[in-house]
Amino acid sequence: MAKPEMIASAANPLVKDVRRAIGRGGLTSQGWCVAETVHLLEEALRSRCQVRQVLAAESAREQLPALDGIRLAMLPDALLQKISGTEASQGVIALIEPPEWKLEQLFSGQALVVVLDGLQDPGNAGAIVRAAEAFGASGAIFLKGTASPFNPKTLRASAGSLFRVPFLYGMDPGLAHAAFEENRVKVYAAVPTRTGAEVRTIAEADLTQDCALIIGNEGRGVSAEWRRLAEGVSVPTVAVESLNAAVAAGILLYEAHRQRSRP
Amino acid sequence: MAKPEMIASAANPLVKDVRRAIGRGGLTSQGWCVAETVHLLEEALRSRCQVRQVLAAESAREQLPALDGIRLAMLPDALLQKISGTEASQGVIALIEPPEWKLEQLFSGQALVVVLDGLQDPGNAGAIVRAAEAFGASGAIFLKGTASPFNPKTLRASAGSLFRVPFLYGMDPGLAHAAFEENRVKVYAAVPTRTGAEVRTIAEADLTQDCALIIGNEGRGVSAEWRRLAEGVSVPTVAVESLNAAVAAGILLYEAHRQRSRP
Repeated sequence: MAKPEMIASAANPLVKDVRRAIGRGGLTSQGWCVAETVHLLEEALRSRCQVRQVLAAESAREQLPALDGIRLAMLPDALLQKISGTEASQGVIALIEPPEWKLEQLFSGQALVVVLDGLQDPGNAGAIVRAAEAFGASGAIFLKGTASPFNPKTLRASAGSLFRVPFLYGMDPGLAHAAFEENRVKVYAAVPTRTGAEVRTIAEADLTQDCALIIGNEGRGVSAEWRRLAEGVSVPTVAVESLNAAVAAGILLYEAHRQRSRP
Repeated sequence: MAKPEMIASAANPLVKDVRRAIGRGGLTSQGWCVAETVHLLEEALRSRCQVRQVLAAESAREQLPALDGIRLAMLPDALLQKISGTEASQGVIALIEPPEWKLEQLFSGQALVVVLDGLQDPGNAGAIVRAAEAFGASGAIFLKGTASPFNPKTLRASAGSLFRVPFLYGMDPGLAHAAFEENRVKVYAAVPTRTGAEVRTIAEADLTQDCALIIGNEGRGVSAEWRRLAEGVSVPTVAVESLNAAVAAGILLYEAHRQRSRP
């Protein structure tokens, strides 16, 4: 391993760049995403994503995995904590080339695409991609107006699934709809039970066919456009009309996996 | 309605008290919990919880529901935003007497008790109580070491369910276990699939009997004590070994409701 670079100043251009990326919840100026835990770094190393650089606090040196050929910069603990977006940093920040996926890769096999329709909370967005991978979804789409997949908080909540699940982001709903038509994918939208008696429950809907699942924004739910274009399905509940968006998405994905695993 | 009090200074004792409660994620010095959205205020008014005081920004006056007999203080917008724990405050902070529940109230009817075993994220804790209400759980237990139900973030994530679902907090695991034995409640613990081939999936386990579901901490999962005392059940997944804690809890509760609704 090459000798690590030493960075001691908050004025260092790389430090400033990473801090800005964390602050605005996006990529660095070089287009790298910021991963803030040892676990995420390990997941990135195991994935096909390229780790471009690692910043580590001096006290975290022992925890670092093998970084063959990867640039490493060592920082004083206080400086790394200052950059970090977490309350108690693990002392590691990895800069990773985000994966690039082609549309057709989202529809491979028995298609199951989860579509984030304007979700604002990166924690929810990341947890949904994590559940998508857990239940064998073929891909994820972050529609325009949704939290960024490259927000360090989204990445963290995905627990590394964003390094593996094929996804597209900033996508126009019209383009997504055209892609669903072209790939003969049935489109379901998660709606609250109160929407009407004509809405099928997720257990009644056929989730074994190639399908896309639209998950709405935390406040307003699924947008009017998708309510029109998609068939509404609801999670049957006893008492409240809605669930946390990530919980609802997780249940839909679980139900799809349950139906698809039936002998 | 009585004439509202006017508060203009950040040095006002009530302002300082509310700010401290939000800062440390707990109750005010008078033992009131802090609810930060109009929706939560409305949910509290509809519940059996007593709303003790409302603080409102001048610009939010029009949005206030009827507050018969409830003390109201008006604040300049900038001061209310300064107190608020949210990035873009809705301009309303309600102080609410937390509900008090007795142990037996958690086991009413066909018991289904969700147990939070050291969860740290108030967003997860609140989303779980929201799902508990949605799927007809009889109660929730926040074991010692779990995020506080009175953290304004927990309350917000519960979307008001904490005003209605019977719950206890700060409970010792030993006491909880004794209560389960006394009430003849079967105890299941959510464990990752990898734990072993002997673990039943949640679809195989009988969730129609009176039962408690132990949901583990985000990092370490269910504690060793509950692994010993409870029967492990797993959410069957394809790829990753774990899910976000609130997503996993939501799926367990959905499955329990599904089994209990079967004709």
